[in-house]
Amino acid sequence: MTGAVPASFTADDYEARMERAARQAAGAGLAGLLVAPGPDLVWLTGYTPTAVTERLTLLVLAAGRDPVLVVPTLEAPDAERAPGASALTLRDWTDGKDPYATAAAAALLDTGGRFGISDNAWAMHLLGLQKALPGTSYASLTEALPMLRAVKDAAELELLAAAGAAADAAFEEIRGVAFAGRRETDVAADLAALLRRFGHSQVDFTIVASGPNGANPHHEIGDRVIERGDMVVLDFGGLKDGYGSDTSRTVHVGEPTDEERRVHDLVREAQEAGFRAVRPGAACQEVDRAARGVIADAGYGEYFIHRTGHGIGVTTHEPPYMIEGEERPLVPGMCFSVEPGVYLPGRFGVRIEDIVTVTEDGGRRLNNTAREMVIVD
Amino acid sequence: MTGAVPASFTADDYEARMERAARQAAGAGLAGLLVAPGPDLVWLTGYTPTAVTERLTLLVLAAGRDPVLVVPTLEAPDAERAPGASALTLRDWTDGKDPYATAAAAALLDTGGRFGISDNAWAMHLLGLQKALPGTSYASLTEALPMLRAVKDAAELELLAAAGAAADAAFEEIRGVAFAGRRETDVAADLAALLRRFGHSQVDFTIVASGPNGANPHHEIGDRVIERGDMVVLDFGGLKDGYGSDTSRTVHVGEPTDEERRVHDLVREAQEAGFRAVRPGAACQEVDRAARGVIADAGYGEYFIHRTGHGIGVTTHEPPYMIEGEERPLVPGMCFSVEPGVYLPGRFGVRIEDIVTVTEDGGRRLNNTAREMVIVD
Repeated sequence: MTGAVPASFTADDYEARMERAARQAAGAGLAGLLVAPGPDLVWLTGYTPTAVTERLTLLVLAAGRDPVLVVPTLEAPDAERAPGASALTLRDWTDGKDPYATAAAAALLDTGGRFGISDNAWAMHLLGLQKALPGTSYASLTEALPMLRAVKDAAELELLAAAGAAADAAFEEIRGVAFAGRRETDVAADLAALLRRFGHSQVDFTIVASGPNGANPHHEIGDRVIERGDMVVLDFGGLKDGYGSDTSRTVHVGEPTDEERRVHDLVREAQEAGFRAVRPGAACQEVDRAARGVIADAGYGEYFIHRTGHGIGVTTHEPPYMIEGEERPLVPGMCFSVEPGVYLPGRFGVRIEDIVTVTEDGGRRLNNTAREMVIVD
Repeated sequence: MTGAVPASFTADDYEARMERAARQAAGAGLAGLLVAPGPDLVWLTGYTPTAVTERLTLLVLAAGRDPVLVVPTLEAPDAERAPGASALTLRDWTDGKDPYATAAAAALLDTGGRFGISDNAWAMHLLGLQKALPGTSYASLTEALPMLRAVKDAAELELLAAAGAAADAAFEEIRGVAFAGRRETDVAADLAALLRRFGHSQVDFTIVASGPNGANPHHEIGDRVIERGDMVVLDFGGLKDGYGSDTSRTVHVGEPTDEERRVHDLVREAQEAGFRAVRPGAACQEVDRAARGVIADAGYGEYFIHRTGHGIGVTTHEPPYMIEGEERPLVPGMCFSVEPGVYLPGRFGVRIEDIVTVTEDGGRRLNNTAREMVIVD
């Protein structure tokens, strides 16, 4: 489930987004956009179906035409109440009918056209469309219009900053809890409760990766009992008022060794370098290169095994990606993580992550807790 | 997120499921199956990635070959710990590489073959495969092997029965709470808490649709204050130990009118007729016809606006579907809802739903609370 829609957006906002999306699609040579339930649909219409099921729900956008939302009949009453509903036409289809034919007819799909389709649309529905409309072709939205949701407006930035501040407040509290002698799952439960206490409606992840578990960047939580002497990677986030938070800090239980301190300092320096590379016009990959260069120069390049960052908005994971090969330029209003890490197999890991937004002058961090190593008990 | 994997299944169970799936695929003329994160992957391997992201994770099954699980490098350590991991080969791919080429090479995909692909695989990934392997073609698993997960074994039936009993226990408690004067959201929160108290790890839906809201089958909950004299449709379920519950009862706040009682009796009779149509060899559509016939004969046919039922297992919504046109036969071990309803726009709705499993002799209900109208306060 994507989170609730913030009340901050009106039907006019959604109408403007749909118009902009249709225009961008036309500019990219597409006959239109096919938008599935999930972040694209929430962002464009404010509508989240009760449940994502095998029943086709599809928003069809094309320049110069009114947006059409194809919905199962029994979900039509809920769809009518969506914040953006007044800016679109609803067309429903009933169990037992062919939803793809309905979609094609209702939305006057260009039967020889190329369409952008939500990344997370179901393969089943794409196959249904390909079969019903053999002359059409498709590209994923990430391929066709990767930056569709990437540039945030002022209201969105406010919501992202508020989500970041809430995650920071959670970190300030978690610093004070007991780590040694408790399980990762216990600290993760504390983190989840704190995120909710500070206004998150949805907790997406609460990674607590202690000691050797920290060397697996996607280790979430386990039954391992945290010990004195452990490094502990904390990486947590979710949705607050429909917009995401995502921050990582690596804390140490008691005094670190010289090597642990050195690796933590290195990752902090890499994170700072990535942050300083953020400016309008720079290619996304420059942020990755800046952070990675610091780690590689220190001889730890092979232990930084993921890209430097990902965008954030109505999801906690979306374009733009800060990765080698991503040559698209940063634009003011973009929001993404800068999160280099070093992972020493069987030993420990360190990751430091802030959400950063691009301003006219450079970058602005939406996470502002200490990046120095925090010692916990 | 799909729920946690029940400890009841071993690597041998998963190996047997993967072998059976590969065999069925070959029997259906497919070169193999491509399985995405979600219910298919949980059922076949016990593996649920930390988060479903744009990074490709794909299980490739083909008869006579070892199963291959393609995973992002940074998720490989978690995948290795999946219950079914010992029965498959892991192949990882690293950020910046082409995951589709990796999948094709690692799994020796038949480049001219037709593959079944999980319904909920991302369109983005299907497009990536179609582009990387232009000679291949695809069918959704629901189209190609709709009954792959439909027949449950004894251990699965036990888990489904336990989930049903937990949902029943929640209904027995909710009968006793105050309805009049409280919001739908309040009663829904009670229901969710009860489902968790009785062992659900995941609550999928807690529909509380009072008065006119009951006439919208997918109305979930709202701020409407429930009044004396309201019919209230309750429809709730989720996952307990990885298997689903889903049951509906329609209660009345205080004494019903004659018409309300008549419509409730009609739906109860239809539900009973649907249940009695369950027997091995009967077509799925016969269950729909039996329930629908009762409602149509009473002149309410146009107010029963959805199919009669859907399967349940590691999800709360899957094949087989009890719907006109579904001619496949019922097989012992299948599990699905029988849930006719009548929806009178602007007035009220009634739905009664049990999960039913097919036995050698007929059907067995996994929900066993009163189907007579329950009066609440």
